[in-house]
Amino acid sequence: MINSNLIENIFKEDRRSIARAISIIESDNSSSSDYLMKIHKQVGSAYRIGITGPPGAGKSTITNHLTKYFRKQNKKVGIIAVDPTSPFTGGALLGDRVRMTDIGMDDGVFIRSMATRGSLGGLSKKAIDAADVLDAAGFDLILLETVGVGQSELDIAQAADTTIVVLVPESGDSVQAMKAGLMEIADFFVLNKSDRPGSQQAYTALQTILMIKDHDENSWLPNIIKAVASENKGIDEIAAEIDRHKSFMREKNLFIQKRERQAKVRIKEIVEHKLKDELWSETGESSLNSSLQKVVLGSLSPYLIAEEIIEEFKNRI
Amino acid sequence: MINSNLIENIFKEDRRSIARAISIIESDNSSSSDYLMKIHKQVGSAYRIGITGPPGAGKSTITNHLTKYFRKQNKKVGIIAVDPTSPFTGGALLGDRVRMTDIGMDDGVFIRSMATRGSLGGLSKKAIDAADVLDAAGFDLILLETVGVGQSELDIAQAADTTIVVLVPESGDSVQAMKAGLMEIADFFVLNKSDRPGSQQAYTALQTILMIKDHDENSWLPNIIKAVASENKGIDEIAAEIDRHKSFMREKNLFIQKRERQAKVRIKEIVEHKLKDELWSETGESSLNSSLQKVVLGSLSPYLIAEEIIEEFKNRI
Repeated sequence: MINSNLIENIFKEDRRSIARAISIIESDNSSSSDYLMKIHKQVGSAYRIGITGPPGAGKSTITNHLTKYFRKQNKKVGIIAVDPTSPFTGGALLGDRVRMTDIGMDDGVFIRSMATRGSLGGLSKKAIDAADVLDAAGFDLILLETVGVGQSELDIAQAADTTIVVLVPESGDSVQAMKAGLMEIADFFVLNKSDRPGSQQAYTALQTILMIKDHDENSWLPNIIKAVASENKGIDEIAAEIDRHKSFMREKNLFIQKRERQAKVRIKEIVEHKLKDELWSETGESSLNSSLQKVVLGSLSPYLIAEEIIEEFKNRI
Repeated sequence: MINSNLIENIFKEDRRSIARAISIIESDNSSSSDYLMKIHKQVGSAYRIGITGPPGAGKSTITNHLTKYFRKQNKKVGIIAVDPTSPFTGGALLGDRVRMTDIGMDDGVFIRSMATRGSLGGLSKKAIDAADVLDAAGFDLILLETVGVGQSELDIAQAADTTIVVLVPESGDSVQAMKAGLMEIADFFVLNKSDRPGSQQAYTALQTILMIKDHDENSWLPNIIKAVASENKGIDEIAAEIDRHKSFMREKNLFIQKRERQAKVRIKEIVEHKLKDELWSETGESSLNSSLQKVVLGSLSPYLIAEEIIEEFKNRI
């Protein structure tokens, strides 16, 4: 059962209704897909910017200053910050949000933190759904801030029109970024805290790595922007680079292509998520539990049990 | 069609047949599940040790020395090293394997590297399947070495009986390990390169974090072992800690429970993997491609298309 007032109020940019809709999405309520279907006609005009990188690179600070920059241009900014929470670190990134009190009081800004809480699989889906709500509510820019340590966080950053990877000059950071897959998703890099020692070496190392990448005049080559975000240095340059990327994508007709690729990934994830729910909801889980001992003792193969579960599922649906 | 000679030869510990079976698993050949079903009756006696941690922590070196240690006890050792490969870093970890030439020539050791090659989703499944082949072939110990940067790598480490997380004293490394979920999966920590400055602080920081964890006499509390693996220091202590963990798990009847939990996760992954294959194999993919433009332009919701694909799938199977 969906509440059509809620949808109307989202279109009117009512903050409470926006927050309520995102809560419905977060709770994995079965009605959330109906809401998302209803708002879709208003979705698509916001520009989405992904901001990711290793912990401590200064992503929140950059998000904070970028938001102020866009507010001066009178653009409305929605922020979705994804926190990979563990039992030990719960709320670590939420603490960062405190630093945002200055922009948080601004009516043209909407900030929402979303935590993993164990179920990593569904988080990228939920964050992208939440971005749709902000898009439908008329925000001009949506900043998706994530910590790039897991596949899910990379997925979120990749769902943006422009993806920024924030690094710091610490030794080995760029190598670690490579291994974590950050190099593949960056539309450009921000080398933050670039007043620190080792900054020039890190810049050169990053440049060398980027030069290996194949490219021609029709493909975008990621740039490196130096910044000291805590002192508001480099923010104008970051905003200019976002614009340059946006223009390039539109000129080369890559913008729609990118969004189509993203839509494909997203639809696949929705389908798989729904099927998984149906699969494990009823008999699946209990019939599985009863056979585990036999698997461990060697009398039943996991592959045989998997086949039985699939057969049972096919008969059920 | 499966080759029953291959299965017999795996049981006879024929190295070529073992390599061939793992290649079948890696290629995602549809016959691989039949092979795995056939060998299952011989699977279960090997002890599995997961070794993970951030890049550069010295996992390969520890794997190398641990292998030599076990060989002196006349135990046969299988090693599965999972390499998260990107277009830029291809073969980085394979280079580490070169250091292993001394153990690689030993008939009681089998080393296999497995790379992500983009399809991160299936890798943990394949690595665990490969461990089954080594188990059936009679290896006493299986070392699963992974770089703990993605969920997939964590899954592999967690499929072990004892999971070792290797860290180095570099500042912030332990915090980063927490955020990446390494704290949850460690049965014990190795603080490698502990002759470096900052080692004692890192040790104390790690200890403090561990003390937050709830535990009683029936739950295992992760220890921290100091090592300088490159000088073979701490290897005996690591082996002793593996034994201590193994004994504790058996005494408290936690061993079978852990394997049952792992079997459950594994069966679920097999089921989901097979269903995904069926889902996107035929009409799924092409009907999806034809509607992407409408999604981007706003006339069709991704949720509506997802529903149609699910309906079509249910009618098909």
